[in-house]
Amino acid sequence: MIPLRTPLQRALLCSAGTGIVPRRHITVFGYTQAKALIFSDHGQPKDVLKLHSHSISPAYGDEITVRFLAAPINPADINQIEGVYPSKPAFTTALGTLIPHAVPGNEGAVQVLSIGSSVTGFAPGDVAIMRHTAFGTWRTHATARSSDLLKIPKSPSIITPLQAATVSVNPCTAYRLLKDFVPLQPGEWFVQNAANSGVGRAALQFGRIWGLKSVNVVRHREGVEELKRELRELGGGGEAGTVVLTDQELGDPERRKEVVERMDGKGAMLGLNSVGGKAGIDLCKLLDTGGHLVTYGAMSKKPLTLGASLLIFKDLHFHGFWVSRWSDRHPAEREAMLEEIFRYIASGELKDAPMEITVWKRDTNGEELRAAIERSVQGFGGKKQIFVFEDE
Amino acid sequence: MIPLRTPLQRALLCSAGTGIVPRRHITVFGYTQAKALIFSDHGQPKDVLKLHSHSISPAYGDEITVRFLAAPINPADINQIEGVYPSKPAFTTALGTLIPHAVPGNEGAVQVLSIGSSVTGFAPGDVAIMRHTAFGTWRTHATARSSDLLKIPKSPSIITPLQAATVSVNPCTAYRLLKDFVPLQPGEWFVQNAANSGVGRAALQFGRIWGLKSVNVVRHREGVEELKRELRELGGGGEAGTVVLTDQELGDPERRKEVVERMDGKGAMLGLNSVGGKAGIDLCKLLDTGGHLVTYGAMSKKPLTLGASLLIFKDLHFHGFWVSRWSDRHPAEREAMLEEIFRYIASGELKDAPMEITVWKRDTNGEELRAAIERSVQGFGGKKQIFVFEDE
Repeated sequence: MIPLRTPLQRALLCSAGTGIVPRRHITVFGYTQAKALIFSDHGQPKDVLKLHSHSISPAYGDEITVRFLAAPINPADINQIEGVYPSKPAFTTALGTLIPHAVPGNEGAVQVLSIGSSVTGFAPGDVAIMRHTAFGTWRTHATARSSDLLKIPKSPSIITPLQAATVSVNPCTAYRLLKDFVPLQPGEWFVQNAANSGVGRAALQFGRIWGLKSVNVVRHREGVEELKRELRELGGGGEAGTVVLTDQELGDPERRKEVVERMDGKGAMLGLNSVGGKAGIDLCKLLDTGGHLVTYGAMSKKPLTLGASLLIFKDLHFHGFWVSRWSDRHPAEREAMLEEIFRYIASGELKDAPMEITVWKRDTNGEELRAAIERSVQGFGGKKQIFVFEDE
Repeated sequence: MIPLRTPLQRALLCSAGTGIVPRRHITVFGYTQAKALIFSDHGQPKDVLKLHSHSISPAYGDEITVRFLAAPINPADINQIEGVYPSKPAFTTALGTLIPHAVPGNEGAVQVLSIGSSVTGFAPGDVAIMRHTAFGTWRTHATARSSDLLKIPKSPSIITPLQAATVSVNPCTAYRLLKDFVPLQPGEWFVQNAANSGVGRAALQFGRIWGLKSVNVVRHREGVEELKRELRELGGGGEAGTVVLTDQELGDPERRKEVVERMDGKGAMLGLNSVGGKAGIDLCKLLDTGGHLVTYGAMSKKPLTLGASLLIFKDLHFHGFWVSRWSDRHPAEREAMLEEIFRYIASGELKDAPMEITVWKRDTNGEELRAAIERSVQGFGGKKQIFVFEDE
């Protein structure tokens, strides 16, 4: 959890589920004044994103007017703007632009401001997350429908908007990676690289909660011993079977042998790969015969190169996983999983990954917002960038 | 089926299951005179293989004396001699050599010459294949135990020794590839490269027998149109849903699009890859979302290079398959599968791949035998090399 310093941040901690509706900027005609980042062409975010002001009509029929509480900047959002992501947003003139545009952002937490007369199941003050990807979450307000939103349960009420806004991609990915490919039993091992990423930290903690042991690989960097200590603790410590080592250490055959010996001499049946290139292959060396490697990212931007002999004679299985597709195909399972994850968050068993907040106020300009996105593109300081919205 | 020309070949066609025991070269003491290719060091077959003469004691207790009828030269045999294969033969002095040696060859058909007093289930004249890999089949005679041998059913009696000797690797591989990874229903598609290989031809024919449609890729070569026609026919023809094209044609996006349209616009859920490198990736382009690519060979000797996006966003799964491991782990299933395959052979539904025979007579010298192995190393004319043994 990030240290909370400002009144805004303190407010964010307790605004979910409290039923307190903040003041609203509405005109005399009932229109909500809203802003959104939009793009009309694919390209680098800093080149193509513009901050657009518009107004939102009062909620009518089955519409729900929401204000955003928090919206993270995920790598997939960036790739979608660049046009290199397989699911592309539809460009429309919905927000009153001359040129068709799209609003980026797939993940976010919102608070209901007002509802149309035929809406059931939602009331002003409710906090919700997006039920599907591609809603467009980098905006202050939006008109939604109840089918777009998944209400956050009021009890436990200590889920913060930051936590709600960041649950759909990273923790959900980690959950499915550990559940859907190999039926791991308590006491069994998995291995992963990018262990300090949002997904990596969630996997480490689910491992601890479910009694799994894990070998966690991080890139060598300054101060890596401190990071290793932190991650080991997230996994329950060395005595619980949490090993953390650097990619350099994994590349050393002697060190790797020690690690495999630690894993009862056999290696793991499940590996989680978000790096690719050599790092993916090195991870395979920690897999047992018949093991499965699941790739869910490619931080190195290098392809996996597989010697056929590794695949054939070690009887390995390689899978890709994309949480967006899974979520769209399994809405009911997703809801049950989210409830379970919220319970872990509420009980303190699942902790947030480090985040860097950019406050989006009424007068925040496009430059400041684009700077946050640029920090995310650069992987600035290894922290997840997130917008939190202040409704003064 | 190869054209049969010599008396030997005609004899081979009908010697299985007939109970006719050929004359035996035994000394006055009852010892069988035998020859075997042996090696004492890993290396190139032409450098390390020697022809060794020895005698075999009369079968005693649970022993069975067998003569070999046919033994193919498979790529795995070559790799085992080179020392680059994961399962390595044990070197012993069993055949009376001063320096420990091993006999290469994993596949073969034998005929029982005599049995020890405690042997049950086998009688002189029975034809059998090896129950396990690494028996050492490049030899004229051997002492076996009943646990080493799997008897070929006498009915149907028209299984030739050539067919019996070559069933364990190629048809069994093709059978498992089509059965174990994706539950294909009649009318569904699979795709494969190296379609003119032994495994490829068997897969094409199983596809026809089981009502599957297939896209088959072969390397461009002189006379490829004739090969395409031949393979299309093995698969039941274009109207049965058998498409054959060259790797060059597959590399052409327009042609590929046509092929995918032919496959109801979706691609296949199963791909069989024995080439690797670019050919493996091109094959992936014919797979549907969620599809499985199984790699069982690496003819190109180039690794598979996987863009992570293909794996993640197309939700692909990659597997390795090694028939030796499968066979050693599933002895009962293997026996049932062999019975089924023998029925297909007997009914004429499953035809042999083209083979080039090297006759191994009593006076054949090591040079002639090594030449056959060299032809196999070079992939001479695309035909499988096989030893057939003449017991004059």
